[in-house]
Amino acid sequence: MSPDPAAGCLFCRIARSEEPGGLVLETRAVVAFLDHRPLFPGHCLVIPREHVETIVDLPAALTAPFWDAVRGIARAVEVALGAGGSFVAVNNRVSQSVPHLHAHVVPRRRGDGLRGFFWPRGRYAGPAEMEEVRGRIAAAADVTGPVG
Amino acid sequence: MSPDPAAGCLFCRIARSEEPGGLVLETRAVVAFLDHRPLFPGHCLVIPREHVETIVDLPAALTAPFWDAVRGIARAVEVALGAGGSFVAVNNRVSQSVPHLHAHVVPRRRGDGLRGFFWPRGRYAGPAEMEEVRGRIAAAADVTGPVG
Repeated sequence: MSPDPAAGCLFCRIARSEEPGGLVLETRAVVAFLDHRPLFPGHCLVIPREHVETIVDLPAALTAPFWDAVRGIARAVEVALGAGGSFVAVNNRVSQSVPHLHAHVVPRRRGDGLRGFFWPRGRYAGPAEMEEVRGRIAAAADVTGPVG
Repeated sequence: MSPDPAAGCLFCRIARSEEPGGLVLETRAVVAFLDHRPLFPGHCLVIPREHVETIVDLPAALTAPFWDAVRGIARAVEVALGAGGSFVAVNNRVSQSVPHLHAHVVPRRRGDGLRGFFWPRGRYAGPAEMEEVRGRIAAAADVTGPVG
C-alpha cells in the first residue's frame, strides 16, 4: 500500500475545518482562505477539497468549479479592497510550498511595488530554436486526453 | 457607439492567424502560442479567442475550455521539455501588458533561478486586521453570481 498523500496535509485539514483557516469561501468542491504570509493584505489561496498536487492532476470535472471559484475570489478581492487588479498564480511542484494545488489570488494596485513578472525576460537564439521548442510543445499538447 | 476593444488587439490578430504566432495549440475556443520574450524557452501564453480583458470577464461557458487548455499546456511543457514543474500566472489589469486575457505557462526546474514568489512576504498586524480583511472578501465572494 502506498501512503495516503493527503495524510497530514495542512490544506486538507483546513478544508475539513480542522485548522483555523481564515476562510473567505466554501463551496462543495472548493475552499478559499487568507494566506497568513500575504504579499499584500487580502492575498487568498483557493484550493480544491480533493487532495491533488498540481493543475495537471486536477480532475476534469473540477476544472470549472475550481476556476470559477478563482474568478470569484479575484473579483472579490478587487471589489472588497478597492484594488485596481489582481494577480493569479499557481506553482506546480517547483516553488510549490504545500503539495496540494492552490491558486494564489493577490490584490494589485498600480505602483504597489510588485510586478507580476520582473524576472529578466530572455530571447530565443533565433527562429530555428523557437520553432524547435514550439514543435515539441505542440506535439505534446493534447487537451482532450487523460490528465489525471 | 463605443469603440470595439478588440480592434487592433495583437492577441485577437494571433487568434485569427493574422500574425505569426508560434502556435502550440488551437481549439475552437482557445489558442496557445510561445511568448517571444520567454522567462525560459517554452514559456507559452494561453488565450481565449474571444476578446475579454481579465479572468473576471471570462464568460462562465469558457471557464472549462480555457483552463482545460491551460492544464494541457502545463502538462505539455513539462513533458516536452523535461521540466520538473511549471508556473501558471495571470495578471489582471495591473502589470497586464496586453489587455486580452492570457495565462502564462512557464516550464520550471529546481534551481532555475526563478522563484514563483520571491517578493518579501508580509504579515498581518494581528488577528483583528486579518479578520477584518477576511470578512470583506468573504462578503464579496459570490462565485455563483454574474461575472461578466
